[in-house]
Amino acid sequence: MNEERLRSQIHFLLRMDHLKHVVRRNYLSDGSRRENSAEHSWHLMMAVLVLGEYADEAFDLPRVMKMLSVHDVVEVEAGDTYCYDPQAVAGQEQRERAAADRIFGLLAEDQGEQFRALWEEFEAHQTPESRFANAVDCFLPLLQNYSSRGRSWQENGVSASQVRERNERVHQGSETLWREAVNFIEDAFSRGLLS
Amino acid sequence: MNEERLRSQIHFLLRMDHLKHVVRRNYLSDGSRRENSAEHSWHLMMAVLVLGEYADEAFDLPRVMKMLSVHDVVEVEAGDTYCYDPQAVAGQEQRERAAADRIFGLLAEDQGEQFRALWEEFEAHQTPESRFANAVDCFLPLLQNYSSRGRSWQENGVSASQVRERNERVHQGSETLWREAVNFIEDAFSRGLLS
Repeated sequence: MNEERLRSQIHFLLRMDHLKHVVRRNYLSDGSRRENSAEHSWHLMMAVLVLGEYADEAFDLPRVMKMLSVHDVVEVEAGDTYCYDPQAVAGQEQRERAAADRIFGLLAEDQGEQFRALWEEFEAHQTPESRFANAVDCFLPLLQNYSSRGRSWQENGVSASQVRERNERVHQGSETLWREAVNFIEDAFSRGLLS
Repeated sequence: MNEERLRSQIHFLLRMDHLKHVVRRNYLSDGSRRENSAEHSWHLMMAVLVLGEYADEAFDLPRVMKMLSVHDVVEVEAGDTYCYDPQAVAGQEQRERAAADRIFGLLAEDQGEQFRALWEEFEAHQTPESRFANAVDCFLPLLQNYSSRGRSWQENGVSASQVRERNERVHQGSETLWREAVNFIEDAFSRGLLS
């Protein structure tokens, strides 16, 4: 047993606790409060287990689960970036890459590299696993926004066309979930929840 | 595509959102607020990815990840049971079994049964996967309690021998993590954080 390795792993896990303080723009589906990135990450895990049969391409489930576990951890340093805020999105990549260096650098090299590779794969949208993980990462907040009567959309003046464009990622991963997403968007628009 | 199946899956995922409202007794490691069961479930996923090498027995990682994703979902109906409250623990099994019938019954039979089997396996502590999942499910809150200077231990008058007994589950899954746990408990006792 390598004592230094175990110390760095425990330090990393304590640092991870901070993801529970990173608050996203979207609300829980009952609209009661905003969601944090840690609980969001767990909910995605459930969504992949439940909705995996609708992926357009065959995928490796364990890799998607690992990818979704780590997909937001750079926010511990970089904070959450609201996808409908163009100014925030502009600096996002650079901010998150720097955070990834520090966060994954807390672990021993083999583990840090493994985690970083999962995060890079998620970000690049180039594999079936990444495409489906990204689809679910968009679909679930859309469902929550729709269920909370568009609370965060209304607070931020989001339009139906912005939501459609953003949720193109659902389309890239699942035709079935995309049809569902389009229904949500159209209904939200017709009810005035989206501009 | 079976429309009714998709509707029940979406309903289930919205019901799952409620796990973010289920508040546990333990605090985040900085002591700022109590933890909810959804963010706890995500943190366990990270802990298994980071600490998996210390399991005493070989185990199937994907099964542990699935098991930890669903291990607390019955709390959506049954609430969290504080492990150091003997009265609450006495009714826990019956309460959670009834909740499991309702919660997993929201899904189509094949999926509901698959989820229920994972939950039953976790509860039974009979497989290497379940033993390691339970070890991490004890070790991580212990680490958080220790880091928050025993805030929830002190609030609830918990003793070192109670914590030792409860964390026997760590011992059953990992000799290395158990050694670490014993160090935390002894240090917490010597500093008066545990009675």
